[in-house]
Amino acid sequence: MDIKHYMTEVGRRARAASRAMAKADTRAKNQALLLIAAAIRREADALRAANQRDLEAARANGLAEAMLDRLTLSDKAIATMAEGLEQIAGLPDPIGEISNMKYRPTGIQVGQMRVPLGVIGIIYEARPNVTVDAAGLCIKSGNATILRGGSEAIHCNQALAKLVKEGLAGAGLPQDAVQIVETTDRAAVGELITMPEYVDVIVPRGGKGLIERLIRESRVPMIKHLDGICHVYIDDMADIDKALKIAFNAKCHRYGTCNTMETLLVARGIAAEVLPGLAALYAGKEVELRADAQAREILAGYPRLAEASEEDWGTEYLAPILAVKIVDGVDEAITHINTWSSQHTDAIVTEDYSRAMRFLREVDSASVMVNASTRFADGFEYGLGAEIGISNDKLHARGPVGLEGLTSLKYVVFGHGEVRE
Amino acid sequence: MDIKHYMTEVGRRARAASRAMAKADTRAKNQALLLIAAAIRREADALRAANQRDLEAARANGLAEAMLDRLTLSDKAIATMAEGLEQIAGLPDPIGEISNMKYRPTGIQVGQMRVPLGVIGIIYEARPNVTVDAAGLCIKSGNATILRGGSEAIHCNQALAKLVKEGLAGAGLPQDAVQIVETTDRAAVGELITMPEYVDVIVPRGGKGLIERLIRESRVPMIKHLDGICHVYIDDMADIDKALKIAFNAKCHRYGTCNTMETLLVARGIAAEVLPGLAALYAGKEVELRADAQAREILAGYPRLAEASEEDWGTEYLAPILAVKIVDGVDEAITHINTWSSQHTDAIVTEDYSRAMRFLREVDSASVMVNASTRFADGFEYGLGAEIGISNDKLHARGPVGLEGLTSLKYVVFGHGEVRE
Repeated sequence: MDIKHYMTEVGRRARAASRAMAKADTRAKNQALLLIAAAIRREADALRAANQRDLEAARANGLAEAMLDRLTLSDKAIATMAEGLEQIAGLPDPIGEISNMKYRPTGIQVGQMRVPLGVIGIIYEARPNVTVDAAGLCIKSGNATILRGGSEAIHCNQALAKLVKEGLAGAGLPQDAVQIVETTDRAAVGELITMPEYVDVIVPRGGKGLIERLIRESRVPMIKHLDGICHVYIDDMADIDKALKIAFNAKCHRYGTCNTMETLLVARGIAAEVLPGLAALYAGKEVELRADAQAREILAGYPRLAEASEEDWGTEYLAPILAVKIVDGVDEAITHINTWSSQHTDAIVTEDYSRAMRFLREVDSASVMVNASTRFADGFEYGLGAEIGISNDKLHARGPVGLEGLTSLKYVVFGHGEVRE
Repeated sequence: MDIKHYMTEVGRRARAASRAMAKADTRAKNQALLLIAAAIRREADALRAANQRDLEAARANGLAEAMLDRLTLSDKAIATMAEGLEQIAGLPDPIGEISNMKYRPTGIQVGQMRVPLGVIGIIYEARPNVTVDAAGLCIKSGNATILRGGSEAIHCNQALAKLVKEGLAGAGLPQDAVQIVETTDRAAVGELITMPEYVDVIVPRGGKGLIERLIRESRVPMIKHLDGICHVYIDDMADIDKALKIAFNAKCHRYGTCNTMETLLVARGIAAEVLPGLAALYAGKEVELRADAQAREILAGYPRLAEASEEDWGTEYLAPILAVKIVDGVDEAITHINTWSSQHTDAIVTEDYSRAMRFLREVDSASVMVNASTRFADGFEYGLGAEIGISNDKLHARGPVGLEGLTSLKYVVFGHGEVRE
């Protein structure tokens, strides 16, 4: 198989399909989503069988248990995929929306129309549900998409792609609007990220290693985030109860997610009051605390206490480990965060109005919170209805990215024969 | 001079200044703009003297007359620079604006806050007024900026930079918020576009050659457009008077601008009616018409008539030359435009509602117009107050880019102790 030729053909077909998708009406797009959801429910047995083939191959290849877990398509996962599509069908269509129409002194009327980006390449690892979620978001936002899933899930992804194409065809939309890369050859990724003539944006979903490689090699813009080194700062004007709840939830609700707290900053004035209570909560979850000298004094006797090195401030543990640092106050907290944060999500706990406002304004991260757990940084929790990923970049989309992040705005001008004087 | 070391220092200082600019209050930013405007008026003689040194060097180097013209700082240009700053001071401050705050079922309140991008690198050619316009837009939008102007304007730019720094200092803002690259060594550009740790976005202002080189070599995202191959399509349901006015203005108002029409598409059904009248107007301006076979039949006898080759459909003439093509109707017009347009600005002239709506929706360009001259595609004409450039890209900013294009949105969450269940 000539990978370059194959990917060029995939790209060419995606570009052509994107033209039809851009002008597809809302009813057709919603119909496709509902047909795909129905097909997924109807073909649940076939999907499980395809998934079984993937799982057997993965076990034969000695894949780790966590990976097998993510690869498994349970009955619940199948139902959730179908429901997700139905939810996307229920969201307002972002495309064609015209905003800010204003008359100018020359007589022309100027506004902006929301339009699709064009062709979106999605590169992801094992999870087969990404195939359906991403296809659904791209269909609704009028884009064509090229999906490159993990090779471990190839049978399942092919089975899902068949159902997606069936739904597209049933709604009169081009089947090429959603294409699965049919080869597991890694060279296909190299092609996908270097054909800007066919692909407008890449959304990578995966570990830091994958994304770092894509950043180095991609010639197509990306909507991405590398990692989540999230902070909670407990100010000396914090409400102790809120501080305990938030700092516990932000660390222990789930360890492996990008919006989990990795470093806790505590104002010196409240440390002796708040840290022992927090330690009692963390001890129940066997969380290791890597603390600076002052915090270690207060935490003396904690069963899993270690010395924090500078490296800890820049580490995303994705595990029951937490870095702890005592700071003078909000100034040092902001400086620490703007130095070490991955600009994903950072929160302050305080009852002081001015410090809350300063933190919101000055912390340079995609999500900045007052008195709430960092775990809320999520497209569903923010009310976007669905999420294609999270962006830590400042250009285009920042933070959780839903349908709107897959669109652009063009200027539209309504005239009456006006010319420039 | 070690260029790499020098540029790293410039970048480091810009990053530090950007932190202060991001939290600068509106009053200080406006005060800086007004102080700079006053200093420019006060030092008009010194600016002209510096400009004289540049002009003498440019003449000695045999610079073309058109280039000398753009380099010249007239009394009017000096006044216009000062007025431009005062206008920017009068615009609303985009930074800190919070929008779309909504309560979520969990109790948290989620919205978005407009924030600066950080450090903006601007690469431009001779015109010294860009130095002041760009500095003004970056100050107002809370960014730091590194300005790399053409080496021909170095004395004038240094004189302007001195006044900008005086204004910043007078308002209590960091002088490093606006830095001029003090060396004319071209290697400085190579450094500027490859230090993403210090520069968040590059805005190149210049010819296609410069921008193509930057696209190849830059590791920093760019807000840019390559060229302007703009179309006017005269539909067979067009009002003839409007068609004549618009097609004449779009070509002949100015030849060298990126929003000038380069190809005229005419529906077959109206060609014989509209082309002779247009030809009479173009003849008065000695415009060369490069037409397809059908159009040449109608235009027979026009003094400057040539045969169009396929190359003409993809050429930005920036001159009194116009490509002319007869099309079947709106379908062929849209297909031609989506194939050949540089996605800058394209217009339809029609009285037919459905065709106007289809053109608006289906033409994939940054500005799409009905019954108006393409020459309106401009930040001032659109009401943005000022313009840093025009983007033909779909990600981030598209079309004329004003203050808002130099900002991003971060999510802000107001909580009351909420945690994720």
